Amino acid sequence: MTAEMFPKEKTIDLRKKHIGPSCKVFFSHDPIKIVRAKGQYMYDENGVRYLDCINNVAHVGHSHPMVVKAGAEQMELLNTNSRFLHDNLVQYAQRLQATLPEKLSVCYFVNSGSEANDLALRLAWEYTGHKDVITLDNAYHGHVSSLINISPYKFHQLANAEQSKSVHVALSPDLYRGNYRQDHPDPATAYADDVNNLIQKAHEKGHKVGAFIAESLQSCGGQVIPPAGYFQKVAQHVHQAGGLFIADEVQVGFGRVGTHFWAFQLQGEDFVPDIVTMGKPIGNGHPMSCVVTTREVAEAFKNSGMEYFNTFGGNPVSCAIGLAVLDVIEKEDLQGNALRVGGYLMRLLEQQKEKHPLVGDIRGRGLFVGAELVRDRVKLTPATAEAQDIIYKLKEQHILLSADGPHRNVLKFKPPMCFSEEDADMVVEKIDEILTGTLNAPLSPSSFPSISLAFTDLILAVPVCRH
Amino acid sequence: MTAEMFPKEKTIDLRKKHIGPSCKVFFSHDPIKIVRAKGQYMYDENGVRYLDCINNVAHVGHSHPMVVKAGAEQMELLNTNSRFLHDNLVQYAQRLQATLPEKLSVCYFVNSGSEANDLALRLAWEYTGHKDVITLDNAYHGHVSSLINISPYKFHQLANAEQSKSVHVALSPDLYRGNYRQDHPDPATAYADDVNNLIQKAHEKGHKVGAFIAESLQSCGGQVIPPAGYFQKVAQHVHQAGGLFIADEVQVGFGRVGTHFWAFQLQGEDFVPDIVTMGKPIGNGHPMSCVVTTREVAEAFKNSGMEYFNTFGGNPVSCAIGLAVLDVIEKEDLQGNALRVGGYLMRLLEQQKEKHPLVGDIRGRGLFVGAELVRDRVKLTPATAEAQDIIYKLKEQHILLSADGPHRNVLKFKPPMCFSEEDADMVVEKIDEILTGTLNAPLSPSSFPSISLAFTDLILAVPVCRH
Repeated sequence: MTAEMFPKEKTIDLRKKHIGPSCKVFFSHDPIKIVRAKGQYMYDENGVRYLDCINNVAHVGHSHPMVVKAGAEQMELLNTNSRFLHDNLVQYAQRLQATLPEKLSVCYFVNSGSEANDLALRLAWEYTGHKDVITLDNAYHGHVSSLINISPYKFHQLANAEQSKSVHVALSPDLYRGNYRQDHPDPATAYADDVNNLIQKAHEKGHKVGAFIAESLQSCGGQVIPPAGYFQKVAQHVHQAGGLFIADEVQVGFGRVGTHFWAFQLQGEDFVPDIVTMGKPIGNGHPMSCVVTTREVAEAFKNSGMEYFNTFGGNPVSCAIGLAVLDVIEKEDLQGNALRVGGYLMRLLEQQKEKHPLVGDIRGRGLFVGAELVRDRVKLTPATAEAQDIIYKLKEQHILLSADGPHRNVLKFKPPMCFSEEDADMVVEKIDEILTGTLNAPLSPSSFPSISLAFTDLILAVPVCRH
Repeated sequence: MTAEMFPKEKTIDLRKKHIGPSCKVFFSHDPIKIVRAKGQYMYDENGVRYLDCINNVAHVGHSHPMVVKAGAEQMELLNTNSRFLHDNLVQYAQRLQATLPEKLSVCYFVNSGSEANDLALRLAWEYTGHKDVITLDNAYHGHVSSLINISPYKFHQLANAEQSKSVHVALSPDLYRGNYRQDHPDPATAYADDVNNLIQKAHEKGHKVGAFIAESLQSCGGQVIPPAGYFQKVAQHVHQAGGLFIADEVQVGFGRVGTHFWAFQLQGEDFVPDIVTMGKPIGNGHPMSCVVTTREVAEAFKNSGMEYFNTFGGNPVSCAIGLAVLDVIEKEDLQGNALRVGGYLMRLLEQQKEKHPLVGDIRGRGLFVGAELVRDRVKLTPATAEAQDIIYKLKEQHILLSADGPHRNVLKFKPPMCFSEEDADMVVEKIDEILTGTLNAPLSPSSFPSISLAFTDLILAVPVCRH
């Protein structure tokens, strides 16, 4: 079954003609046309199956029937805005709240992680009356203009990048490549002190800090896992300066880390952010997102006198879909699966690290895992071209993986949460084969545009996802 | 058939507890709980039917079966991001392009009108290298922080509003209440000259103008219809200053004005904006939106070196829904219906203007119509409380209408496009009855919180929408 209307060449031509060229496709030398997907598998126009290790948006598995059914049934009944009362909205808010610490009780429903993070900034600005924002190096928080300003991952791409004077970039709490590493006696305090230094410098210039924002685990920034206790110490400094702590869970929330529902909870039970933003996995691909905050922050925002209305945010269809996603996570124990399969994947990758010098570091929590590739384990020279080569070779083997981080040398696993141990076996086995081949024939950057189509669909004994 | 889980009081309680208090409900004294909708009708939890004169988002009619089917079928098959090739994306871009002047050929798909307008600003800033923006008084362009800055409708709500130094507010080209009125010999030139004055003043301060942005017809600003030729003259001034013209069609596009598919086309065939943003009606309630621009602007944005990626934007489900909306508009001749029924509604309202001194002005195009209420036809004293009273009384009669504009005294019609002449008869007849009653018992602001629930569902011979 395919849903192809045009031959692939025609699709590519029309895309070049009518779609903004800033929106890049995967594997631009030979992009993939996907026509259907199920669970952790995607299928191209010829029925070739790809194992999906990258689409964290399809959180409970592509086209999950329970989610599709909930969306379709609600679309048939009603899809309208939140100026009318609707039970889906309040029930969904109640269900989300139940996953969070009690003081995070007020929800704002929006359409994307970008809208969520922009609103989080507005809440913080209004509550604190302070304009400055502290962000982490290599952070990415979204594509609207206010968020480009606080996303070094993006603004470093600009030749003539002009950093806003009210934005301060703190050290990324990266224990592998950062300023303070595994061998440091107390990296949590050291990295938090850097934030405090920025606060003090801002004060010296007469500025005031309204918010510190960080992904609970940095994703585009290179799958960075901050040391436990770091957020508590940062929050202390930021609160003392009158600012708020915003935890961006857009990429890492909803049970992905396995042990907890939210990644900020990895820091310890004594840590509660002032604002949490959530996005990508929330609707399994449906455009929806949410900001949750405390009653105090919500009331201050209201008291500004400016109404907040979001046309599509919190509509009954989005909420029905959101509720179904929560149901599936629970029913299929996907958080438990993330813990088990993620742990298994980490162990397999650790074996690769022992075997191949190129594999410098394995880090992750649950089904959020990074493998950082380096040419030299002491100098940590990023193996950027090698990472690209692996990604392209995996694609030839019909496995979708990506490389990210500031040096694009971190293999990034964030698959649908129904990913299985057999899937983990398959991808790591292929990486092993590629790296073993590498030892015989050194990789070069020029090698990766050459795409072989010799491999067709791999008939492997991979059990299908539970749905 | 209802989809109620909680008694209404419980819904209200949960909403107070868990939903941001800045998001207001309609008729806050006695809000409506809507559980299903079809065509131009919405139904509450007791099965009471409301005639919907306000939901322009449900463009082709609430829960249109063709749109629901397209969305459900595509959800079942695939919903993923635009880094994979997909025919829905390119076909939809091609279909949208076919409705626009040829030079507007490059699309960026996003999730909301706010994301669209923010991206439009980013495109203009990057293409021109200029930062300043000219916006119209009373304009509303969205809720993200960059757009609050250019939305006087919003920032006037703040007690301590601090207008950005790079934002300049031009006169709203309002021929009824504005600086230059119907009796002015050339209001188009006069209003455009005001824009030019702002440009010159910005230049004097060493600023440079990157963009002029305006809704093609001002919606929240009070259903303002700019004089024909105004946009051409503004574009001339703005282009001369090196800036771009952004036409915001989020509320007024997609055939609503009847004679044309886009409201900017009302200005004349010789006018083509540099960027067009579209939103609300595009997906009949599904969160989606689009920015269309020229190849030159798109290439300049690409050449900045910063990638643009939108997680949900242009996904196959959104595009399937967008295509279905275009199909329905065509198949059911909804643009023609907007022209016919909109004209009929205007004639009925004109009769009200002759009959009731409170009705000061009737203006509109197609199914985008405003009736401005004034206490004095010479002084134009806004009849704000009276407008609120009418809205509340109509609600008692199960008709949903809203009042907007800077003085909240403009009755605002923007119904689903399947609105019928019988619907128009019904709402105007009720307005007539209310206004006639008014003459006997003067309205007072204190009268509107008193909600009578004496009227149950009105059994009127109103034909149902074609679907």
